[in-house]
Amino acid sequence: MSYFPEISQIKYEGKETNNLFAFRHYNPEEVVLGKTMKEHLRFAVAYWHTMTQDGSDPFGNPVNERTWFGETPMDTARNRVEAFFEILTKLGVEYFCFHDVDIAPEGDSLEEFFQNLDEITNLIKEKMDETGIKLLWNTANMFSHPRYNNGAASSNNADVFAYAAAQVKKGLDISKKLGGENYVFWGGREGYESLLNTDMALEQDNIARLFKMAIAYGEKIGHKPQFLIEPKPKEPSKHQYDFDAATTMAFIQKYGLDGDFKLNLEANHATLAGHTFEHELNVARNYEALGSIDANQGDLLLGWDTDEFPTNVYDTTFTMYEILENGGIAPGGINFDAKVRRSSHEMEDLLLAHIAGMDTYARGLKAAAKLKETRYLDDLREKRYASYTEGVGKRIVDGEEDLESLTAYAMENQDIRLESGHLEVVKSRLNDLLF
Amino acid sequence: MSYFPEISQIKYEGKETNNLFAFRHYNPEEVVLGKTMKEHLRFAVAYWHTMTQDGSDPFGNPVNERTWFGETPMDTARNRVEAFFEILTKLGVEYFCFHDVDIAPEGDSLEEFFQNLDEITNLIKEKMDETGIKLLWNTANMFSHPRYNNGAASSNNADVFAYAAAQVKKGLDISKKLGGENYVFWGGREGYESLLNTDMALEQDNIARLFKMAIAYGEKIGHKPQFLIEPKPKEPSKHQYDFDAATTMAFIQKYGLDGDFKLNLEANHATLAGHTFEHELNVARNYEALGSIDANQGDLLLGWDTDEFPTNVYDTTFTMYEILENGGIAPGGINFDAKVRRSSHEMEDLLLAHIAGMDTYARGLKAAAKLKETRYLDDLREKRYASYTEGVGKRIVDGEEDLESLTAYAMENQDIRLESGHLEVVKSRLNDLLF
Amino acid sequence: MSYFPEISQIKYEGKETNNLFAFRHYNPEEVVLGKTMKEHLRFAVAYWHTMTQDGSDPFGNPVNERTWFGETPMDTARNRVEAFFEILTKLGVEYFCFHDVDIAPEGDSLEEFFQNLDEITNLIKEKMDETGIKLLWNTANMFSHPRYNNGAASSNNADVFAYAAAQVKKGLDISKKLGGENYVFWGGREGYESLLNTDMALEQDNIARLFKMAIAYGEKIGHKPQFLIEPKPKEPSKHQYDFDAATTMAFIQKYGLDGDFKLNLEANHATLAGHTFEHELNVARNYEALGSIDANQGDLLLGWDTDEFPTNVYDTTFTMYEILENGGIAPGGINFDAKVRRSSHEMEDLLLAHIAGMDTYARGLKAAAKLKETRYLDDLREKRYASYTEGVGKRIVDGEEDLESLTAYAMENQDIRLESGHLEVVKSRLNDLLF
Amino acid sequence: MSYFPEISQIKYEGKETNNLFAFRHYNPEEVVLGKTMKEHLRFAVAYWHTMTQDGSDPFGNPVNERTWFGETPMDTARNRVEAFFEILTKLGVEYFCFHDVDIAPEGDSLEEFFQNLDEITNLIKEKMDETGIKLLWNTANMFSHPRYNNGAASSNNADVFAYAAAQVKKGLDISKKLGGENYVFWGGREGYESLLNTDMALEQDNIARLFKMAIAYGEKIGHKPQFLIEPKPKEPSKHQYDFDAATTMAFIQKYGLDGDFKLNLEANHATLAGHTFEHELNVARNYEALGSIDANQGDLLLGWDTDEFPTNVYDTTFTMYEILENGGIAPGGINFDAKVRRSSHEMEDLLLAHIAGMDTYARGLKAAAKLKETRYLDDLREKRYASYTEGVGKRIVDGEEDLESLTAYAMENQDIRLESGHLEVVKSRLNDLLF
Repeated sequence: MSYFPEISQIKYEGKETNNLFAFRHYNPEEVVLGKTMKEHLRFAVAYWHTMTQDGSDPFGNPVNERTWFGETPMDTARNRVEAFFEILTKLGVEYFCFHDVDIAPEGDSLEEFFQNLDEITNLIKEKMDETGIKLLWNTANMFSHPRYNNGAASSNNADVFAYAAAQVKKGLDISKKLGGENYVFWGGREGYESLLNTDMALEQDNIARLFKMAIAYGEKIGHKPQFLIEPKPKEPSKHQYDFDAATTMAFIQKYGLDGDFKLNLEANHATLAGHTFEHELNVARNYEALGSIDANQGDLLLGWDTDEFPTNVYDTTFTMYEILENGGIAPGGINFDAKVRRSSHEMEDLLLAHIAGMDTYARGLKAAAKLKETRYLDDLREKRYASYTEGVGKRIVDGEEDLESLTAYAMENQDIRLESGHLEVVKSRLNDLLF
Repeated sequence: MSYFPEISQIKYEGKETNNLFAFRHYNPEEVVLGKTMKEHLRFAVAYWHTMTQDGSDPFGNPVNERTWFGETPMDTARNRVEAFFEILTKLGVEYFCFHDVDIAPEGDSLEEFFQNLDEITNLIKEKMDETGIKLLWNTANMFSHPRYNNGAASSNNADVFAYAAAQVKKGLDISKKLGGENYVFWGGREGYESLLNTDMALEQDNIARLFKMAIAYGEKIGHKPQFLIEPKPKEPSKHQYDFDAATTMAFIQKYGLDGDFKLNLEANHATLAGHTFEHELNVARNYEALGSIDANQGDLLLGWDTDEFPTNVYDTTFTMYEILENGGIAPGGINFDAKVRRSSHEMEDLLLAHIAGMDTYARGLKAAAKLKETRYLDDLREKRYASYTEGVGKRIVDGEEDLESLTAYAMENQDIRLESGHLEVVKSRLNDLLF
Repeated sequence: MSYFPEISQIKYEGKETNNLFAFRHYNPEEVVLGKTMKEHLRFAVAYWHTMTQDGSDPFGNPVNERTWFGETPMDTARNRVEAFFEILTKLGVEYFCFHDVDIAPEGDSLEEFFQNLDEITNLIKEKMDETGIKLLWNTANMFSHPRYNNGAASSNNADVFAYAAAQVKKGLDISKKLGGENYVFWGGREGYESLLNTDMALEQDNIARLFKMAIAYGEKIGHKPQFLIEPKPKEPSKHQYDFDAATTMAFIQKYGLDGDFKLNLEANHATLAGHTFEHELNVARNYEALGSIDANQGDLLLGWDTDEFPTNVYDTTFTMYEILENGGIAPGGINFDAKVRRSSHEMEDLLLAHIAGMDTYARGLKAAAKLKETRYLDDLREKRYASYTEGVGKRIVDGEEDLESLTAYAMENQDIRLESGHLEVVKSRLNDLLF
Repeated sequence: MSYFPEISQIKYEGKETNNLFAFRHYNPEEVVLGKTMKEHLRFAVAYWHTMTQDGSDPFGNPVNERTWFGETPMDTARNRVEAFFEILTKLGVEYFCFHDVDIAPEGDSLEEFFQNLDEITNLIKEKMDETGIKLLWNTANMFSHPRYNNGAASSNNADVFAYAAAQVKKGLDISKKLGGENYVFWGGREGYESLLNTDMALEQDNIARLFKMAIAYGEKIGHKPQFLIEPKPKEPSKHQYDFDAATTMAFIQKYGLDGDFKLNLEANHATLAGHTFEHELNVARNYEALGSIDANQGDLLLGWDTDEFPTNVYDTTFTMYEILENGGIAPGGINFDAKVRRSSHEMEDLLLAHIAGMDTYARGLKAAAKLKETRYLDDLREKRYASYTEGVGKRIVDGEEDLESLTAYAMENQDIRLESGHLEVVKSRLNDLLF
């Protein structure tokens, strides 16, 4: 049975095609800088936005037209697995990501929930074996249920912590079963609504405690995915502890989690925190902590997470540039944490939107590769920082100077003139390199 | 000679006074929670906003009417010392802060600048000895001169690094001479204008190198002020590396500066970074890194640093509450990094604005003390987190649980109901406690 | 039957009470500036936030504990009317507001919806007659249903326009039946998601067409409530046409709606548009268009509509000050368009939150009255603008000057010195007047 | 004498050139949609950013290296005219804009200022006659001098109003002398710092009074440039009355200025107000008030006016698309209200930055023309709004329906299904049309 009977495998047809169901830029086997586009991009589809999102918003009822609803929640869950792998296969995407609650109904008890998860993950495993599609990461939804109102590991209620721990354990068991390459923590409610009633120190200590339990359990069961924390500054919380990459690195260092945890960075979360996405990626690289990315785009004039499919070529170019500088993103990937607009409510939009996102990333990759090949930015920076490769600059870098020796040097070298950076030229030339 | 001949020593006269040149709330010797208000508040006046700010803005010429301009820049500098200590004395403020360039003209060479600094700091020292007024902190301005266009320690030009090092050495020498209790680094241009031409990793490494040189030099000369970094997210830089408290703690930890560096936090910088000030203070406390504060207030509808004198009682209450929770702010203080509005361009506004700020902080202290005395928030939190003081919660905190034991516990304790936090009531009651 | 059996009529007990179910400041019959507090404040409760909001958010399931759910949607609707009037009565609130869909289920057809509305409004009318409680305003929800995805009057689909027209007609019929004093239009989706596919001119023309039809129908049925437009800049739309007060006044003037339409202004919408609420109220006053207000408060560090109950006394003071300047708000009122926090999920929070809001407004009223009585701001402004009451200033105001005569005047009066506004003093004194 | 001796006339050399001093896209005589690029774009250089901006910012001293400083301010002023026309000529730009204070020193009195203006405008006129270069618009700077601290026409001091009137009169005399095609009002301080001491109604009345005097004077001297108001939401003011296009249209309508005033819109001002630039242009078009534009770009993550040269091709495409939809921008133009970055402090950056901006606009024009030629968006919209061209939709537009007739229609047409807008596809296809 097919959920998209009229749509066949999406193929690369090039920029001139009029076929909406074709790639115009993403050509999986095309080699760019020595690797295929597929190897570079490691695309993943997100279960939640693709399979369970209904198009509702705080002022609007559900609107998405979906054909996979069955008689019972479990029927629907099973149908979704079918449909999901059809989408993955038709798109030629090799990875996927999910929260526990995305794939199976919670039922009336934890036992029932776990049983449902077992059944559905069996089904998923079959599909994975059939298709060769892999699990980029899974995670536990510890923010939607009322019990998580005040957080999960950071809840004021210890029973909630325990419940969360049970979900994480199950998540790691599933990760092992499905060979998950990463495991993600997004602390949507690990933060506060008001400082007035909050003990931030205890809450953060407790989050670290849960993370250490996860590390220990992974070691115990002999499955060690790369653990990832996904920063977001706010929403739904007024303040989320993992505000941005740097904040999360402060936490990771404070609690000695450096060896085990990296970051899963999202474009829209970056801008909500007041940063460009490339900034966040660069920060993560400098802490050797760039794990994986959630690909989407926000609207800088809106103050909430719009999770749009990426269509801005500047953004994807700078993203892919950082990924190239990082030597690639594996074992992470590029997960479309993106949802169709409320007005794109038809089934086929699920495919069309992913095609748009994949093409935009393919353009980004090709443009970033051109930047690397032409060495335009490399040369610019090499020249700009040349003074640190010799003389006093080299001695500073090598730790051979101190305040006194530098004062003596400065006395003899007061007449300093900086060269213009010609930033307007750089940005203008970039347009010609990119497009 | 007096610069404010018609204004005498500002005294506490109470809320009902009609005298503009009197405190209505700040009563220095009044005891609150066992300490005098003066001991709690440790106010400082900032040399830059009070003595050298001219009221100009990006669209406006200088406007402030000041009577201390002399024949030569050094005359002016000397006059300013006189006027500054008159202000401090009349306000009854016991601390002050300055950048090197605030107190003395840079002249035509580093030698001349240092000579000017020597002369003026001699004068300042005399005044300090006369009055008992103390140096809270000094710092080097490494952002205004064109040489610092691309940063100081993070400049792409090593000669600039050396020049900055010379300023820092001199700053520490001055700190020793004047018995400075803290020494501040604010990296206004330690950041970037565009990532395109920036090597963020090298730049941050270099900043850390300068900081380590400062530590070493302090040890060498036997003067060790508390080193403080002042976070700000942006302006003048597009991105400033010390974005906020948490970002700066990530940096401090990465480079092993924990033992020597704490934070100097500013209210307006907090809001520019998307945080409340009390959030930043709380974060710093949790890293045991709350060093000192720059007291001012911003306008949350404006995207730049307005550095207004604090007049919002909610804000100063929450600030003082965090300071009380921290066990006080010493050896730091409450420095008015605040400037009179462009329309408050008369000499007497300098005193009036500080009176307004000091009174607002005094109200904040008294309100915060009332919160502590009534234990309103303490009781609220104690009750809220009670589950971590016994049973499974205590075992979590004590490290006696793991994912498996908690899963077993959760299976038996699925029926979780959170109690309402009644946040509306809390906020409403707070009004009655505060005002 | 009672939904709040343990809570009796909320009474004024004064600031010292420990009874949570009492007013500490709102004393309905207390006379302030010659009118009772009740007459000044004209409070209204909003049906949607109080009766139908479930506490869900984009990342969270419903959480509110409510006891009025019945066997069928209509049972629930009937129960809600009971509970609603119990809340109104216990709070002593004399007005209420609702959307059509709040009070009755939409059923399977427009006919059924209208029939449900008829039945429920009959019930409401009975309650109104019993209690003397009045309808401040009603409105039609023309944004939640999928048909309104692209707007109602501004939809690209003319059938949607017609459907909306039917809802408005019914809304006006209900308004007549219940004696509504105002009728509101909030165009949540009258805006766009992307300009790329939008014909803004046609869409705004069509909105005006609907408004004119409403005016005409009101005249026809002999019921003319004050029509109100409620501005909001965005959310759910990327851009909402009625961005703020001034934008809406441009629209109202362009389409000649001035005589019939005024504004319903909301605090949180003001800040989302980049304004203080008092700014919006002042703008509306200047266009003689201040109709009614939606009382709540937002969080300026968050970019979405949080609709919090008002608890900030500065804000309510400035709001009430504008209302006093306006000569009162009637026939409008102060409608609590505010929802309990997700963590305030218990039934009693509905009452507690309204008490908090009403007390904060009562404090605001008393503080604003004090400002008027002391003439603190009046005197300040009178003095500040005195130059326009005589001489050249008066002639400018009287239209007796032109560029040439003023040039001649200026030539003789070049030496202009502005007086300091001492704004820091003003704000500091205000604290003592307010609290 | 030349200020740029090593730079010759900038010519179009195409995308492949390595010559920094060449256009890569702007080819003045190239015909696009039936007009030359020069005719479409009507570029202007701004005197202030190009000739008088010194590169300072609130935290930085002047940095720009300029070679036109003479012995006296008037020498400098004369040199600047030379240099300015060299820049215009070498760029091939045919229009320019200025404030009075940009071109001549204010001297010690209004008489001296006017005399200086007379001398410099004589010089400018000569240059104009020689080169054929034209005045797009001039304006009076009524915000930088301390007298304008509280506004110009909106000042609380009537003498300031008179002084402003004198500057406007002189500005109109100059406009006549130089054949200015437009005359601009930007009210940088026509707004408030605090509502507490502000009489907004009087202030706005007074602004309108000044505008009417300007209209009258233009008529009197027989010179009627298109009057333009330039909206900006804030900075330097806390709130600026001409917040955005719609707000300004409300003002224009209220005071009956519609026939005489249009808008001069700026990209960076649009984003500071929370809008895209294309939104503002579209709003202005709908009020038939799109007068001219200030071309620059802001940084949406920064809260102040960065006035960067435009380098984003998406932005210039959407801008030029609106201008094409408007039937062109004449008698307005595209004025580069843009300043070189602080790090672009060399003389040649003035030319390089304008080349970057002009090329980016040329790309935008060509991309927008392609959008028009392919009718991609036209077809999209025609199809989307088709329902208003026949049946009930047409009757709505033609005013033939009312609430009752539409209710009857809706009853028969309840089953409405919107078609997907496929917005992700639209945005992705746009990339291929644009680049």
